[in-house]
Amino acid sequence: MFVSPHLDINSLGHLTIGGEDTVELAERYGTPLYLMSEEELRDNCRQYRRSMEEFYGGRGLVAYASKALCCKAVCRLVAEEGLGLDVVSAGELYTARAAGVPGKRLILHGNNKTPDELAMALDYGVGRIVVDNLTELRLLDTMAAATGKRPGILLRVKPGIDAHTHSFIRTGQIDSKFGFALETGEAMAAVKEALAAKELELRGLHCHIGSQIFDIQPFCHAARVMLELMDSIRRATGTALPELDLGGGFGIPYIPDNDPVPYSRYMEEVSRTVKEFCGERDFPMPFVIIEPGRSIVGTAGVTLYRVGGVKEIPGVRTYVSVDGSMADAPRHALYQADYTFLAAARAGQPPARVVTVAGKCCESGDLLGENVPLQPVAPGDLVAMLSTGAYHYSMASNYNRIPRPAMVLVGEKGHRLIIRRETLEDLVRNDLD
Amino acid sequence: MFVSPHLDINSLGHLTIGGEDTVELAERYGTPLYLMSEEELRDNCRQYRRSMEEFYGGRGLVAYASKALCCKAVCRLVAEEGLGLDVVSAGELYTARAAGVPGKRLILHGNNKTPDELAMALDYGVGRIVVDNLTELRLLDTMAAATGKRPGILLRVKPGIDAHTHSFIRTGQIDSKFGFALETGEAMAAVKEALAAKELELRGLHCHIGSQIFDIQPFCHAARVMLELMDSIRRATGTALPELDLGGGFGIPYIPDNDPVPYSRYMEEVSRTVKEFCGERDFPMPFVIIEPGRSIVGTAGVTLYRVGGVKEIPGVRTYVSVDGSMADAPRHALYQADYTFLAAARAGQPPARVVTVAGKCCESGDLLGENVPLQPVAPGDLVAMLSTGAYHYSMASNYNRIPRPAMVLVGEKGHRLIIRRETLEDLVRNDLD
Repeated sequence: MFVSPHLDINSLGHLTIGGEDTVELAERYGTPLYLMSEEELRDNCRQYRRSMEEFYGGRGLVAYASKALCCKAVCRLVAEEGLGLDVVSAGELYTARAAGVPGKRLILHGNNKTPDELAMALDYGVGRIVVDNLTELRLLDTMAAATGKRPGILLRVKPGIDAHTHSFIRTGQIDSKFGFALETGEAMAAVKEALAAKELELRGLHCHIGSQIFDIQPFCHAARVMLELMDSIRRATGTALPELDLGGGFGIPYIPDNDPVPYSRYMEEVSRTVKEFCGERDFPMPFVIIEPGRSIVGTAGVTLYRVGGVKEIPGVRTYVSVDGSMADAPRHALYQADYTFLAAARAGQPPARVVTVAGKCCESGDLLGENVPLQPVAPGDLVAMLSTGAYHYSMASNYNRIPRPAMVLVGEKGHRLIIRRETLEDLVRNDLD
Repeated sequence: MFVSPHLDINSLGHLTIGGEDTVELAERYGTPLYLMSEEELRDNCRQYRRSMEEFYGGRGLVAYASKALCCKAVCRLVAEEGLGLDVVSAGELYTARAAGVPGKRLILHGNNKTPDELAMALDYGVGRIVVDNLTELRLLDTMAAATGKRPGILLRVKPGIDAHTHSFIRTGQIDSKFGFALETGEAMAAVKEALAAKELELRGLHCHIGSQIFDIQPFCHAARVMLELMDSIRRATGTALPELDLGGGFGIPYIPDNDPVPYSRYMEEVSRTVKEFCGERDFPMPFVIIEPGRSIVGTAGVTLYRVGGVKEIPGVRTYVSVDGSMADAPRHALYQADYTFLAAARAGQPPARVVTVAGKCCESGDLLGENVPLQPVAPGDLVAMLSTGAYHYSMASNYNRIPRPAMVLVGEKGHRLIIRRETLEDLVRNDLD
């Protein structure tokens, strides 16, 4: 299967994930159902770590951006693979802690961390807090003084790179809610203030240029821009900051047209950029952090739906209605994102026609895919939506009061539930009279 | 306040809802906080019922579309006001039942009801099931036979009306996942099949032309189109269907430019259309159902946020970051919806400047409002977002693992929690090892 080596078709013509028959998994666990391939998730972690070893001598940290998919089991798996973990809220921090991920391997992000979140981070000894703005810098300094802890921080910088991706997920340009602008001198001023803050250990800089990027050049360009800033900081302050966090944003395939770069090539070229720069300027090679999220879990995930009805509107389109919705798969409604769909029991057959896959929400915009090729399906059949490991469960809502699906991890030791299906009881748990 | 007579400004210059100071409510319950005015919610229900009385002799039912906001307390309040209730899923049905709403006052909608949902509806004696397609019609007929119950049904028809609203929420045209097309003869064929189904009581037709509509004409046009179809059905089958459900979609004000029609004028003009038609054709006046959702709860709701930081990017824009996000307020990210914002403690002052209100999610697209006028605010201040009663809590997610806010009902007897704030524990409740 083009999106993942862990998807295949068995002798019955059924789609398999990690060798397990998706038709059987749907029978066993019900639908809608999120599936996650343990082997692929681990492979992706290992590829990133290997490339950090091979091209940068291991002088760095691969930190999984858990906002892509945050639950205890996934946090634990990723930590087992030796990765660090990005968290962006009290809830993600709480989950990572519940999963036993050590504080020093955590990085806390966010444009508007609350005092409670900063207090949690200090309490748990989060290794790096990525400071977004001066209000936060001063607050954290005060809070650190009160606790007697001296947290390591990075400063988030907008490198001014536009990676030409969807405007929602483009974050490196100056018009962004995140970080300090480079070109206005704001970043340099913040660095000086951070260096002067006695309670904080400024370890380096962070940038993030966007998401779902298929080019390597913007990353190399961003690395060079950030290194130039680090060199300017050395000239202005005498301090060569030891760490450079280059963020994430590596694209994954959703449809056959998508052509992602192998992670190793990204690491190879960025490492070369960093090494060249440091050689030219005699700058100490920084400890490099990268933050893949989607590219760790995205293609490892598949969602299974059951078809409820097929509505052919002659001359217009054919709607295939499934038992999921924008509540469990919001990215098409939010970003007009494209996906690949397969009839799980006929995955080896050629697509019969082009259809629109509709969800069950009472809203016309509740579509999962428009004009997508699909094998023949009838009510009762299963439809698999590929590359749903990232930003599906994590963005899922209870819109239309629909319980969120279960998630099953499919691994070498078989399959097991890692997120329980919500019940109707769960929906009213917080309702009061 | 333009959106609601239940919002005001007190002697301290603070925004009030139902007479209660929002600054005090934020202190008491924390932020982000959903507030709901009981009096306005009840007033809206009463206005709809009164206009049904005044202009149509009470020969109809106003059914609250609970997908706008579904929790036990709101279902109970609406039922106390004598309204019926639309539900679109097992979860909404379960909530209505938990709130004690009688089955016969419920209407079940959905383009893809699952067999479980139909079974629940039969079990609870739901008054009307709006059948969307032939697969469902046949399934329900079989299921009804097995239970010995004879459910009342309506058939959902696409009247072919384009109400010129946002394409996501435009549902009356032929290219829709909902219902039977009129112009292709599909609707007539479905009526004949439904009339022949012995286990089902076909009571009438249903249509819904879209959402957030400010014009009355599309509604009158839809009523006439549906009545024409009912008259054709009478000619073709000898049966004058006794019920006509005209759906909802009545617009509410989000910003001062919005100019909604008073509900009573809608009912007045639609009633006139129905009466005229029935007079002309000697057609028995149908029992009329209307389904307001947003216009019952929308302007009754306000969300309070606390400002974490203000980031001025010279020559570009000023970001005001609040402690909420697209996770609790997804409509700007989803539909580019506009809203009105006020500094809660300075609501009587003129806006100081135009700002962009950013959420705390780790995503550039996480904005609640762009280029909106706002009074001066600094970190720690409160910002109120108006008209958030509909499609905020109901669409809220845990994106970035952020707990969903609490909701407080503000009524004549004071204020009380009706939805408890989610805890960090809640977030991992369904996580397994």
